[in-house]
Amino acid sequence: MRKIADSTVRRLSLYLRFLEEFAEQGMATISSEELASRGGTTSAQVRKDLSFFGSFGKRGLGYSVPELLVRLREILGLGRSYRVAMIGAGKIGGALAQYRGFRQRGFETVLIYDRDPRIIGTQWNGLRVRDVASLEEDLRREPVDIAVLVTPAEVAQSVTDRLAHLGVKAILNFAPVQLTVPEGVVVKNMNLALELEALSFALTNR
Amino acid sequence: MRKIADSTVRRLSLYLRFLEEFAEQGMATISSEELASRGGTTSAQVRKDLSFFGSFGKRGLGYSVPELLVRLREILGLGRSYRVAMIGAGKIGGALAQYRGFRQRGFETVLIYDRDPRIIGTQWNGLRVRDVASLEEDLRREPVDIAVLVTPAEVAQSVTDRLAHLGVKAILNFAPVQLTVPEGVVVKNMNLALELEALSFALTNR
Repeated sequence: MRKIADSTVRRLSLYLRFLEEFAEQGMATISSEELASRGGTTSAQVRKDLSFFGSFGKRGLGYSVPELLVRLREILGLGRSYRVAMIGAGKIGGALAQYRGFRQRGFETVLIYDRDPRIIGTQWNGLRVRDVASLEEDLRREPVDIAVLVTPAEVAQSVTDRLAHLGVKAILNFAPVQLTVPEGVVVKNMNLALELEALSFALTNR
Repeated sequence: MRKIADSTVRRLSLYLRFLEEFAEQGMATISSEELASRGGTTSAQVRKDLSFFGSFGKRGLGYSVPELLVRLREILGLGRSYRVAMIGAGKIGGALAQYRGFRQRGFETVLIYDRDPRIIGTQWNGLRVRDVASLEEDLRREPVDIAVLVTPAEVAQSVTDRLAHLGVKAILNFAPVQLTVPEGVVVKNMNLALELEALSFALTNR
């Protein structure tokens, strides 16, 4: 398959959101113009985005909402399940565990780690918090698809190196650090502090 | 001033984080190599990033931690205060209000809106939740610097149009929609669902 740009994937997610609302309202078809309005783009871009993944829609009739919904979910890899290791048993991890969207997307937390002896061994949503020192031993026996990194910044890179070495291919990073990863490993960052500073920078440097 | 890339601003934020930790440990100087390790980049890139903003550091001695800290905070527009309007008085708004980093960066919520008659008029951290219908009237009298958008997706763009028309120059968007804004308005997106789907896409389409 051709390399798909991050911005395309982002728009596919937005189209999916829109289609889900339309399906709830019982609508049967949708035009590329309507999808475009949600993705902040043009109808030509919608047709191009979808064309990467095969042939959709009928000229003049638009797209079938239920069909496109199923196909977009497949494209985005939803509907299957992913094994997740949470590195850091803190507040963010707790919030994520409660976040419906995490489970809805098939992200199933199967391992939780911390390095704090006061936290290791405690129960956490039915899982025992393990010592991060046993990462190698555990992940060789029970591989995971995704690691969620909620460690302090100063250890984030070294944990990432260990995860990459263990074959983890996807990392959701909450630590305020730019991770370096080998090719084939995908990192997505969630960091409110950085977004806030980008806004204050923009307001100050106009 | 030259246009600064988003990726540069992001690295400046990461350098700042690192410098804050170093300052806490009482360290006086830092090399561009050390800063580079935190920004996931090279020492040449660090020197280039900082050179946009004047002359820093001494050859062979590195950067003074306290000096660079003060300067980076200035560059990022920290240490002054920003008036924030929160559009949507829901869970995320509540979490933000509790988030220390929001106030630490001078983001002061002065107005809160909702469209739900059951929520309008209630007190919320000492502020009365106002009807979003009064946005124009209020913001003409009490302009704000930043709007935080925590509305449902289907109204996010129309609220954004109103905000841009009222002269709001910075938007932090939590709604799962790609906003279109006029030139001169900056939008930063925080959306966990989109990041999760980017990861599942990457794992599925390898």
